[in-house]
Amino acid sequence: MSDGVTMRPIGRIESCFGEKFGTPRQSGLVPEARGRVVFSDEVPAGACRGLEEFSHVWIVFLFDQVREEETRWFVRPPRLGGNEKKGVFATRSPFRPNRIGLSLVALESVGEVALEVSGLDLVEGTAVLDIKPYLPYVEALPAALGGFAQEAPVALEVDFSDEARSGLNENDRVLLAQVLSLDPRPAYHDDDRIYGCRLAGRNVKWRVAAGRVLVISQESLSSRGEIR
Amino acid sequence: MSDGVTMRPIGRIESCFGEKFGTPRQSGLVPEARGRVVFSDEVPAGACRGLEEFSHVWIVFLFDQVREEETRWFVRPPRLGGNEKKGVFATRSPFRPNRIGLSLVALESVGEVALEVSGLDLVEGTAVLDIKPYLPYVEALPAALGGFAQEAPVALEVDFSDEARSGLNENDRVLLAQVLSLDPRPAYHDDDRIYGCRLAGRNVKWRVAAGRVLVISQESLSSRGEIR
Repeated sequence: MSDGVTMRPIGRIESCFGEKFGTPRQSGLVPEARGRVVFSDEVPAGACRGLEEFSHVWIVFLFDQVREEETRWFVRPPRLGGNEKKGVFATRSPFRPNRIGLSLVALESVGEVALEVSGLDLVEGTAVLDIKPYLPYVEALPAALGGFAQEAPVALEVDFSDEARSGLNENDRVLLAQVLSLDPRPAYHDDDRIYGCRLAGRNVKWRVAAGRVLVISQESLSSRGEIR
Repeated sequence: MSDGVTMRPIGRIESCFGEKFGTPRQSGLVPEARGRVVFSDEVPAGACRGLEEFSHVWIVFLFDQVREEETRWFVRPPRLGGNEKKGVFATRSPFRPNRIGLSLVALESVGEVALEVSGLDLVEGTAVLDIKPYLPYVEALPAALGGFAQEAPVALEVDFSDEARSGLNENDRVLLAQVLSLDPRPAYHDDDRIYGCRLAGRNVKWRVAAGRVLVISQESLSSRGEIR
């Protein structure tokens, strides 16, 4: 239809989410999820001047930490238990043409080379294409109809084993509980097998049984010399 | 910082706005502003299946109808009367890295090759990169702080000369009034000169005096053989 346009990242995400598995499917669901937008060298100091007046910002990003490249024109949203196919433009699936993502996060602080944000739903290393202020007078439409995703997903209760609780500070405990309450298991699975993911610099293991999450263990990755 | 990514438009905008001048600076400000997202041939039928359950959609677009190519890292938002410089990431300026725009519009209908939308703020021909459903449970934050753009801009009263009113149907009269009430003049200008723009297939002339807009004349472009 038209020539392509070349885009270059203006920065990268530093995140408490070390891999896609376990990362929330939308922003804002895990208020404790913190991270940074670290700008590249080409972005001049002051490019965010004035942003500190806003409480929330849009991160326009690339789904570049998801390996598969191909567009899936029809997808089965996890919300619908994987039982129903929707067109990609009716979903927020990563496997979309141009692979642009949109994430609304709370702005914690504005620095010269980075923004601190919370409510993040992005994986470590994600390429950032743009930052925009959130405009509530235009973009806050609480009466809008949200189709099959009208309400936030139901959160599960989360318990910690004694082992998992030991050596975990309060912030990380809240973060783990918020993330796992969203039940990151693939939509098609309803089983009690043990799952694991990298979260807040830890290797976390958990299972779901009788509608409750049990965190079995968590181990710091940095103690084994891995990067956070 | 990283290699570039090539993006291709998935469609184009058909709009009541024939040129940038006169086009609202944000979406939703002119509810009567109607248009279509027309998908390119590569988009399969059904790629929007399920979108009809949502009342609002995001249009992720390219600012490709704005001629200037260069990034302006510091801009003077019209809201501030052109007196104050902000970093580009604290604004919604078109002259930004990667030139990605974000527009929230009401969804009027979903067809096989096009979406009908309203509350549009995009110029005829704008390249569309993505369509996403609006998720109110994530994206409606009425309590967010909107910095120097907390409230909608103040609307001016709009009067029509007898000449301008004649031959104008009610829909187009409302559209013209909504658009011109936003005072499209450049922020630096506060003068009573006559301005003109292409709007709803018409060549519209108006002036602002004593804080009121007077529509002087409007002439159908199609009657002169020009495209809408």
